[in-house]
Amino acid sequence: MGSTSGAAEQAKHAAGDARPARRRLSVDRRREELMAAALELFSRRDAEDVSIDDVASAAGASRALVYHYFGGKQELYVAALKSAAAQLEALLRPQQDGRPLERLAGGLTRYFDFVEEHAAGFAALLKGGPANRSGEIGEIVDSVRQRLFRLVMKQMRVEEPGPVLRITLRSWIASVETAGLDWLEHRDVERPALEHLLIDHMVALLRAAARHDAQVADLLAGLEPDRSDLPG
Amino acid sequence: MGSTSGAAEQAKHAAGDARPARRRLSVDRRREELMAAALELFSRRDAEDVSIDDVASAAGASRALVYHYFGGKQELYVAALKSAAAQLEALLRPQQDGRPLERLAGGLTRYFDFVEEHAAGFAALLKGGPANRSGEIGEIVDSVRQRLFRLVMKQMRVEEPGPVLRITLRSWIASVETAGLDWLEHRDVERPALEHLLIDHMVALLRAAARHDAQVADLLAGLEPDRSDLPG
Repeated sequence: MGSTSGAAEQAKHAAGDARPARRRLSVDRRREELMAAALELFSRRDAEDVSIDDVASAAGASRALVYHYFGGKQELYVAALKSAAAQLEALLRPQQDGRPLERLAGGLTRYFDFVEEHAAGFAALLKGGPANRSGEIGEIVDSVRQRLFRLVMKQMRVEEPGPVLRITLRSWIASVETAGLDWLEHRDVERPALEHLLIDHMVALLRAAARHDAQVADLLAGLEPDRSDLPG
Repeated sequence: MGSTSGAAEQAKHAAGDARPARRRLSVDRRREELMAAALELFSRRDAEDVSIDDVASAAGASRALVYHYFGGKQELYVAALKSAAAQLEALLRPQQDGRPLERLAGGLTRYFDFVEEHAAGFAALLKGGPANRSGEIGEIVDSVRQRLFRLVMKQMRVEEPGPVLRITLRSWIASVETAGLDWLEHRDVERPALEHLLIDHMVALLRAAARHDAQVADLLAGLEPDRSDLPG
């Protein structure tokens, strides 16, 4: 594996400006192009199957230039991962309009768009990780999970979660991540049905937690003003 | 960090047979002793803070012997992880008596016993992993998750899960893992209360999923014969 291109990639090359000639570009823009090429490759394949040559070739750059900007494949992978994390965060930035559960559902759709776009990279990273996953990569994954937690809190308009609410929200986020991996592996449910199931899961988890904790009960009453009399 | 012993460890040495003299032992038994010492150290500290010398010292063996049996720290860590995975699986082996939710609750208690006993190692492994987590380690983590999935299915008496049930059970297992990490980090909920919350989460997830899927509805009716008329 590694340096050969599949039919899909060849078609893409033929359609776009295949192997664009090396151009003079500002340092920032050149780095950005290399990064975009790297991110696309890491999204479609396991990191072990992406070489520096692949990245150079996809960006129409020399192998030396990739080394010059990134130092090596591990650094390039870390940089691509940080870039993907920033993209995900931008995608999920809380929107002000809509009811909390609607905003949560919108965020979930954008999360699955991201999962689908970065399918191979997402699966490889979270299923156990590429060989030589360094501490730095684990830290990026953890910090993304923490940011997702804060985003969900914002979307649900929670300020200071107590233990039961914190555990319930973190549990749900973990279950969404797992559902994303499961979906990439099986794809035997339609995405809208899966997203609907996961939102129902969130409400169900909150209902169960509301029996243990007054803060969750209050939150739930605010989420479902017309349904707060339903039994958990 | 690395080679110094804490007060607790010193007390333990004083109480037990501190630094036992090297004895002639069969190869298997010697290897087992080294492994037990390694597993205890990896359970209490991040793998980065455990040296071959620590393991040798804890087992009353020479550094050379540890290298002889395991080759190096990475191999020793992988072997200890496999041994921990086997322990976990033995702990969770399905029991024949009791109703499914009671058996699930019993399994959850034993899971948290394991999490508590291997606290530092569990957190370090699953929070993102030690530096240089190799593909092999990711594979062990994945295979443990798969075995947990099959165990939960057995405890719930599920044979062939459809997509909705599969996703729901995997989601719950992921949420239990996350709750374990959260508990090690915060310890601001009593364990029995947390376990109770997680069992309620499972029932709530199944109720939500039952609205999407007939197999889950059947399973739920069997789990709660006296409560199956409750709305989800």
